[in-house]
Amino acid sequence: MKKILIINTGGTFSSVKSEEGLTPGLGEHDILRELETVAKDCTLEYEDFCSLDSANILPEHWAGLAERIEAVSREYGGVVVIHGTDTMAYTASMLSFMLWGVPVPVVITGSQLSISHPVADAMENCRAAIHMANSRCPGVFVAFNRKIMLGVRASKVRTMSFDAFDSINYPPVAEINACGMSIHDELIPKRAAVRFRADTSFSSKVMVLKPAPGTPPEIFDAMADMGCRGIVVEAFGLGGLPFGQNDLCEAVRRTVKRGVAVAIGSQCRYDGSSLSVYETGKRALEAGAMEMFDMTTEAAVTKLMWLLGKDLTMEELREKFGENLVNEVSPRRRIG
Amino acid sequence: MKKILIINTGGTFSSVKSEEGLTPGLGEHDILRELETVAKDCTLEYEDFCSLDSANILPEHWAGLAERIEAVSREYGGVVVIHGTDTMAYTASMLSFMLWGVPVPVVITGSQLSISHPVADAMENCRAAIHMANSRCPGVFVAFNRKIMLGVRASKVRTMSFDAFDSINYPPVAEINACGMSIHDELIPKRAAVRFRADTSFSSKVMVLKPAPGTPPEIFDAMADMGCRGIVVEAFGLGGLPFGQNDLCEAVRRTVKRGVAVAIGSQCRYDGSSLSVYETGKRALEAGAMEMFDMTTEAAVTKLMWLLGKDLTMEELREKFGENLVNEVSPRRRIG
Repeated sequence: MKKILIINTGGTFSSVKSEEGLTPGLGEHDILRELETVAKDCTLEYEDFCSLDSANILPEHWAGLAERIEAVSREYGGVVVIHGTDTMAYTASMLSFMLWGVPVPVVITGSQLSISHPVADAMENCRAAIHMANSRCPGVFVAFNRKIMLGVRASKVRTMSFDAFDSINYPPVAEINACGMSIHDELIPKRAAVRFRADTSFSSKVMVLKPAPGTPPEIFDAMADMGCRGIVVEAFGLGGLPFGQNDLCEAVRRTVKRGVAVAIGSQCRYDGSSLSVYETGKRALEAGAMEMFDMTTEAAVTKLMWLLGKDLTMEELREKFGENLVNEVSPRRRIG
Repeated sequence: MKKILIINTGGTFSSVKSEEGLTPGLGEHDILRELETVAKDCTLEYEDFCSLDSANILPEHWAGLAERIEAVSREYGGVVVIHGTDTMAYTASMLSFMLWGVPVPVVITGSQLSISHPVADAMENCRAAIHMANSRCPGVFVAFNRKIMLGVRASKVRTMSFDAFDSINYPPVAEINACGMSIHDELIPKRAAVRFRADTSFSSKVMVLKPAPGTPPEIFDAMADMGCRGIVVEAFGLGGLPFGQNDLCEAVRRTVKRGVAVAIGSQCRYDGSSLSVYETGKRALEAGAMEMFDMTTEAAVTKLMWLLGKDLTMEELREKFGENLVNEVSPRRRIG
């Protein structure tokens, strides 16, 4: 029987009530006792990585987690990471890059209610995560509400519903229904056989900029002044930014000239950007912006952080950012 | 027969191909000729307000548009505003506040493809908008893809699909189907009979801050240093912000102390915030943040801009921001 390792980072899953509100608290004994009731055809081992509400997860945690998973990936048949939902999509995206080529399934899950709540979703999510971790299907995934998604495509879109995560611009890679779990192998990225090593270098100096009408161009300068090396812009519609009176396109140009990588996507959650359709997008491209296409913001932020840790020239960085590494971005569609 | 006024602001609807990409271009004659084919039981008049890709719409345009609509609201049975989709939700939200109590329907629409494209959605959207404008049902609405939504609840969520807008955390107020247009009157806010005047004072000094893991607290200070009077934060999950090592809660506290209004909502598009559940939210509340609950970011940004134009004390502003004015925010739910 395969061994599955459960790595707990905290989050709602193991939270308890305190005077300050819900906060992480349940320990190994409580959690394992519950999880063993849903583990079939495998044995579970458990370890704590940290005990944090995921709003408090920092980029440094991602590297530590990736290194730990690398270290155990030869000993275990799969890994389940229990994580708060709030920043789960960021962690899942970064692990997808750092653990590119991991030989076992790494399945991130959590819940909208604590495992101690009588109507919690915690056990259903773990049941799916453990089953996927035991599937011999390598990669980094999110298991939530009877869906298995690529880690790099998951995004939290609902704050209260148990159906908290969507797989953005990409189908779920497995569903759970009356047939059991059906895995769509063709949707899962394969990496040519390499000796697997986690690649955990990164720069955390990436920020998100979401303009509203009237947002002053100087916000780009302020971010660059703060030492920001990458800016992910959630622009309007297909990726448009104002020019003329309130010229954000010009601000992109001078920010890129200062050596800051600027990636442009959309405030709209679905369908992705396409900067070459409208003048408002074309000007941003000409100003030196990179394009996110149908990547999520979480994937773009972590991809940029990860690439900025690689000592690339700006030209190499631009090329790598545009490349599809782990199915985080789809091939271009012809528009007409 | 009632007269409906069409006010054109530009956008994809009337765009034409140019060397710089699609850009506004079609004129009154072309547009009216098309629209008259879908206007039943009313006559149309037309005027240009501006001719802009909506990425280039600025807060100043909102005030001018509201003043123009006030001026014509006694002469016409309804108004249709043609607008680019990219910032339509911001305009629709601000007009909902500025035109609170408007005695006629004001219906904002646009399209994902130019009216000159053989498979465009432009005519279907206008058909619905004109019919709603002719309904005697006062208020500010968005008509898109056979749905009529409250202006203050609409948000562009898809960049390519014709179903570009969702009515966020609130049902559409009317649908179009085999029964015609069914309007749900109970979903439309009523204002006690007042002599209607547009209220167009505002401050444009409001910005959106969307943290990612690792975003430095100093971004709050940088925004305040730029003269920002209001910050709308898209926080994690139910509205959590990191404390401890990368302390955004403390940054909220010192920013509020400087007299900047800080409103906190969620990066998740659906279900809204609830800051009093987790410690990461409670701390932000205690630091002096206001809560967005289930308001959209577009509604929160424009509501804050509008309230900041009213010469209120910080206490009055906080109270007004929390109040439901035009159904932009739902009554609290009991959680347990």
